[in-house]
Amino acid sequence: MAETGPLSTFDAKQIRVLAFDVFGTVVDWRTSIAREVDALGLGVDAERFADAWRAGYQPAMQRVRSGALGWTKIDALHRMILDDVLQRFGIAARLDEAARADLNRAWHRLDAWPDAAGAIARLKRRYTVVTLSNGNIGLLTAMAKRAGLAWDAVLSAEVFRHYKPDPQAYLGVCEVFDIEPGAMLMCAAHPDDLRAAAACGCRTAYIDRPLEFGPAGRSRHAPAAGAFDLDTTDMNDLAAQLGC
Amino acid sequence: MAETGPLSTFDAKQIRVLAFDVFGTVVDWRTSIAREVDALGLGVDAERFADAWRAGYQPAMQRVRSGALGWTKIDALHRMILDDVLQRFGIAARLDEAARADLNRAWHRLDAWPDAAGAIARLKRRYTVVTLSNGNIGLLTAMAKRAGLAWDAVLSAEVFRHYKPDPQAYLGVCEVFDIEPGAMLMCAAHPDDLRAAAACGCRTAYIDRPLEFGPAGRSRHAPAAGAFDLDTTDMNDLAAQLGC
Repeated sequence: MAETGPLSTFDAKQIRVLAFDVFGTVVDWRTSIAREVDALGLGVDAERFADAWRAGYQPAMQRVRSGALGWTKIDALHRMILDDVLQRFGIAARLDEAARADLNRAWHRLDAWPDAAGAIARLKRRYTVVTLSNGNIGLLTAMAKRAGLAWDAVLSAEVFRHYKPDPQAYLGVCEVFDIEPGAMLMCAAHPDDLRAAAACGCRTAYIDRPLEFGPAGRSRHAPAAGAFDLDTTDMNDLAAQLGC
Repeated sequence: MAETGPLSTFDAKQIRVLAFDVFGTVVDWRTSIAREVDALGLGVDAERFADAWRAGYQPAMQRVRSGALGWTKIDALHRMILDDVLQRFGIAARLDEAARADLNRAWHRLDAWPDAAGAIARLKRRYTVVTLSNGNIGLLTAMAKRAGLAWDAVLSAEVFRHYKPDPQAYLGVCEVFDIEPGAMLMCAAHPDDLRAAAACGCRTAYIDRPLEFGPAGRSRHAPAAGAFDLDTTDMNDLAAQLGC
């Protein structure tokens, strides 16, 4: 998809709903997953294991998108990928069914970035603040409860039966709140997510998360300056730029 | 449907998710709607108007259930009923499009019963506490924000594309949270809602709201003693009976 610039001058007063990507943008999946893998004492590189697990995510969603797999919750996709990654790391025999089910729920226990909970509370005073994640509702709800993320509503690909970046996900949020796409601000650390939202007519806020993929992963993310309506260093900076 | 008694001894420790009916159970729709109608100075009996508006609700959902109408959000059903009620009260010419749209959103501005917000905060410490309402997500989210109802997640017939008391609504909540029906407690002021949940294997808590239909409406509601797992006088009593 081509880099899509802002459609017109950004005006925070036209925004009514803030929709947040979650994995990477609001929570630090890599450190959280690595910590749980490490605690199992399996003798593997826990960061590499976390990266491998996460790397299976886009191909798994693509199988749903292509129709090779029917609609499947991320919990179930995470489990398929986990079984495969355990095999590839040569430790499949080390984890029984109960241990795998518990490790799979590590995605329900991800820690938020330090600014996230406070910034959501600030943003809520002026906007309706919701998730728009490919994570399933149960996962997002458990995570929010544990991490103190007081979303106004938990929306998910599961509601729309379409994963991001399918347009149905972004437009689904607009339909839920009966707003024009220009009244929704998609907030994410991932340029492809934001470009897909912009293509639907939504406004976009880039949230920089330089450590999402660890110290070596930085270069993957930085978007061209001015590519999105707002370019922020974290969620508190987003709140400040929105005047909250 | 026959009065369905508890399936087995109720044990609060087996419950993981509390799903709340909203209109009547958590919020006082009649007083709130009547107040907004009254403020318009239309010279009608505002309580009678509120009752007529609400009375159109079940027949409207039945049109969706029967297939006569495609899937329709409650916001749109409320608007169809409003147009009809204005006609029947002989005041259709008094409200233009903008005034009707605003009055229709009165359902987003319903006041909670005085115990609701505090009880939800108590219950959340031990359980996942969500809505299961026929109201649409946008309506429920706006209402929760205004009334300070800090749900863990906003679930709605809109997510499942089935209105209560269709079993798909109750079982949909169980699927979202990956729980057996016996781990869900349906909480409502309406015996028919609870009976439908019990028929799906869910546990049930009756919440008494003697004033839902005003001082004259009392007799419509009281269920037979012991008909449900818990029989409570309000949401704080529910929290107390659950040991929260």
